[in-house]
Amino acid sequence: MMPLMIGRFQPFHKGHLYAVKYILDRHKSLIIGVGSAFESHTLKNPFTFAERLEMILRALDSEKISREQYLIIPIPDADYHMLWVSIVKMLVPRFSIIYSNDPLTKRLFKEEGYKVEGIPLYSREIYSGEEFRRRVISGENWKELLPSSVAEYIEMNKLHKRIIELASTDKPYKKIDFTKLI
Amino acid sequence: MMPLMIGRFQPFHKGHLYAVKYILDRHKSLIIGVGSAFESHTLKNPFTFAERLEMILRALDSEKISREQYLIIPIPDADYHMLWVSIVKMLVPRFSIIYSNDPLTKRLFKEEGYKVEGIPLYSREIYSGEEFRRRVISGENWKELLPSSVAEYIEMNKLHKRIIELASTDKPYKKIDFTKLI
Amino acid sequence: MMPLMIGRFQPFHKGHLYAVKYILDRHKSLIIGVGSAFESHTLKNPFTFAERLEMILRALDSEKISREQYLIIPIPDADYHMLWVSIVKMLVPRFSIIYSNDPLTKRLFKEEGYKVEGIPLYSREIYSGEEFRRRVISGENWKELLPSSVAEYIEMNKLHKRIIELASTDKPYKKIDFTKLI
Amino acid sequence: MMPLMIGRFQPFHKGHLYAVKYILDRHKSLIIGVGSAFESHTLKNPFTFAERLEMILRALDSEKISREQYLIIPIPDADYHMLWVSIVKMLVPRFSIIYSNDPLTKRLFKEEGYKVEGIPLYSREIYSGEEFRRRVISGENWKELLPSSVAEYIEMNKLHKRIIELASTDKPYKKIDFTKLI
Amino acid sequence: MMPLMIGRFQPFHKGHLYAVKYILDRHKSLIIGVGSAFESHTLKNPFTFAERLEMILRALDSEKISREQYLIIPIPDADYHMLWVSIVKMLVPRFSIIYSNDPLTKRLFKEEGYKVEGIPLYSREIYSGEEFRRRVISGENWKELLPSSVAEYIEMNKLHKRIIELASTDKPYKKIDFTKLI
Amino acid sequence: MMPLMIGRFQPFHKGHLYAVKYILDRHKSLIIGVGSAFESHTLKNPFTFAERLEMILRALDSEKISREQYLIIPIPDADYHMLWVSIVKMLVPRFSIIYSNDPLTKRLFKEEGYKVEGIPLYSREIYSGEEFRRRVISGENWKELLPSSVAEYIEMNKLHKRIIELASTDKPYKKIDFTKLI
Repeated sequence: MMPLMIGRFQPFHKGHLYAVKYILDRHKSLIIGVGSAFESHTLKNPFTFAERLEMILRALDSEKISREQYLIIPIPDADYHMLWVSIVKMLVPRFSIIYSNDPLTKRLFKEEGYKVEGIPLYSREIYSGEEFRRRVISGENWKELLPSSVAEYIEMNKLHKRIIELASTDKPYKKIDFTKLI
Repeated sequence: MMPLMIGRFQPFHKGHLYAVKYILDRHKSLIIGVGSAFESHTLKNPFTFAERLEMILRALDSEKISREQYLIIPIPDADYHMLWVSIVKMLVPRFSIIYSNDPLTKRLFKEEGYKVEGIPLYSREIYSGEEFRRRVISGENWKELLPSSVAEYIEMNKLHKRIIELASTDKPYKKIDFTKLI
Repeated sequence: MMPLMIGRFQPFHKGHLYAVKYILDRHKSLIIGVGSAFESHTLKNPFTFAERLEMILRALDSEKISREQYLIIPIPDADYHMLWVSIVKMLVPRFSIIYSNDPLTKRLFKEEGYKVEGIPLYSREIYSGEEFRRRVISGENWKELLPSSVAEYIEMNKLHKRIIELASTDKPYKKIDFTKLI
Repeated sequence: MMPLMIGRFQPFHKGHLYAVKYILDRHKSLIIGVGSAFESHTLKNPFTFAERLEMILRALDSEKISREQYLIIPIPDADYHMLWVSIVKMLVPRFSIIYSNDPLTKRLFKEEGYKVEGIPLYSREIYSGEEFRRRVISGENWKELLPSSVAEYIEMNKLHKRIIELASTDKPYKKIDFTKLI
Repeated sequence: MMPLMIGRFQPFHKGHLYAVKYILDRHKSLIIGVGSAFESHTLKNPFTFAERLEMILRALDSEKISREQYLIIPIPDADYHMLWVSIVKMLVPRFSIIYSNDPLTKRLFKEEGYKVEGIPLYSREIYSGEEFRRRVISGENWKELLPSSVAEYIEMNKLHKRIIELASTDKPYKKIDFTKLI
Repeated sequence: MMPLMIGRFQPFHKGHLYAVKYILDRHKSLIIGVGSAFESHTLKNPFTFAERLEMILRALDSEKISREQYLIIPIPDADYHMLWVSIVKMLVPRFSIIYSNDPLTKRLFKEEGYKVEGIPLYSREIYSGEEFRRRVISGENWKELLPSSVAEYIEMNKLHKRIIELASTDKPYKKIDFTKLI
């Protein structure tokens, strides 16, 4: 029973590391599917797949998890949700159980008859990509959310600066809600 | 004068049925264009075209409206709005009047010189796809909004469960408004 | 067991009509999937879906085959072959057997576990879209290949002229085979 | 050092005109890149590239800025942000400095090693496409924000009516926030 | 009557220059639409739009044709031919007559009711992009086919080397015709 | 200096294996970029990325090449060639030298300033994907071209049958060359 763990890993945080270990406790090996693989340079998806790949490799290398035990595969978004499971099947060798927390991902695989489980994330209210990005923007401690090897990689390449720049605006006025004008 | 009625039919509700009858009172036959045909599995567009096609057929069959009187044609969204009327023309045999309530649809056809009319929906504040989806999620009576044959089809295939699952979230924290951080 | 017959119908010829009757002899009803639905204005796919839809309706109306007995659904090509069966599933209500003569179509459905049969076309060396297009271009009798209602529709709208124009060229020289230059 | 000024110009307003003059004070010539070139008929991007091209030509002609001094090039959005700089390079002849106020545009060019500067817009809280669209919808004076030749062009072609129609709605009920239902 | 001349200009050769002059003899000004604008780095379309834009500007500048007299607009290919005229309309300000030699282009515009004329190219058997590419690959004199300013630009940037590299192959065997194997 | 080896691996044959060893003799580690990653089910690209990934892993496992020494990354084709290097950069962590035999790949990377080398394939006239596919179709010995673990994988999953089916045709007549009709 080959497990496929799907996440966006923006970035790979301590909760993800916990989940990888949890799955490897129950299975011999693991495929890590990196969702929204082609997205980058947005607040929701700041990092490229190449960058996320490096983060995951560094984090698992640091934990002495052998590369013989897992594969990392980029999975792009589909033009239409109904096509997404087929995209996964064309990229990922035979998997038989999916670990994901995304309601849409879970529903799409269930409709195709797959076994789906939630990813048991550790302290989800803290260890999340969204909380990481919030802390980066508001200048709080974001490093404690990440495996130290990932934090170092981000800092070394100044990737957190990208998030701050993307969040910046030079507009002196408030965003207008057009729906309230009429 | 062949009429083309355009809607998304997510799902086909009593207001849509009223409109079909209204148009067939004024025209011999009707083309039903199903917009956003390739979208599905989202809160705004939960059902596939295949599912919506079945709903429309069941609803009109129940009303003894003969299939000789209408055609149902899926119409995908365009990459760019300026291309959308051409997409309709490549899929729909010569039509000469458009019935739609979507401001963009109406504008695009008008700019190409077509005659456009609103769809006279019945009790729009109640009979709407949005209200249907709201009731499904909040556990209220959604069946009364639909022709009974459509409600049965949804229930039989547990399609309302899809909406509930898509609306669910496992996030313990509130969504962050990044624009308020800086 | 709902049968799905897939073809491009460029145009709908006597062989196709024979096949529709053959299938309706064995099944109560039929879904006609029109492949490469968004292609048009090429030598291989000269007609739009809207035009092909009209041809099929006219041919089957002339044969007194009731519209209660069949549905016509446009099916676009997929960006990647692995996605195509999912596209069909998102557009076509539950079908359980596929009739097609295209090797790729047959293979793709077989890999997904579907029952697939060839379309029993009548006198295939004559009744084919390719032979039709050849006759149009070389000025031979193309009408005898088509149901008369289809031939009339094409002539009335001068659609055969489109094929002749697309086949024309104003180039006074022969096409160069670059691979032979080096 | 050929400067490339990138904006969406929805529409071309007095702030843009000020910026063009500012850049032409410092450089011999200028390339004007029109971003989101294929978008139109939305509240954020109401005008087509063809319309925006006419606006810019009229505005600069009125100011006696010779067409020998600038080029106008449409630049579509990329499917993925990482591809956007390559799209610009495939459309725009060698430029060496970018003027833009969009944080994403600036970041993407900086990562590729380009020199990037902000566009020095004049009275940005007033002269902005967003303020223009707000005034059109709420019936306030929008003409004073535009070069008079642009205002005339919009009025002559009744393009402001497009914005009003797109902002209209026939829905009698409030938009539902689904995230608050569960 | 604003004329729109459509070509691919791979590269802009003496025949194109002759055509521009021919059209400007009959009209005050001209829009030059550069087709397949996003294609490059193939034997059929070796040059980017940015490169073709430079070629056209250099050729017309050399002929003292003022930039006040013409506009150059890139026109991408459409996903589906039926959408192509709409793409042109979204990019090109109101034109009323099309000059082109491509049978498909002519047909598509005629079906939409436009006036279409062939481009009167000079000595077409010699002055053609195909002949240019053939000469580059076989080492014959290609410069005499081009305005000297275009030939200089290509040579200066070694763009003809790109064609030679693209035509090269490291395969020691002949291309197999699979259709002959079965 | 991290090397990136790019091929389509349809399938991974003895020549590819030789090349991997050649590169690992010169570098500590290697990234294997699988081109046309999303293509499959055609004569030129019969296998999915998932299948090619399995082939490569089996071949290198058999050779006792540790997974610590290499990464395998799928690389899709670009819509436009000018975007392809950016796609590689968004998927592949910092590489500094490219090994490829495809003229287009080499040219595109060279234009972006990368160091590019040919892949030193062993007996290229025999060990090639094209020769493999030819032998499968004509019933000759194709297994000797592949590492035995790859041949076993193909046979076990009957993947060679896919090639034979795709090459089949049910057409009783010869393909018409339309260009010779006019």
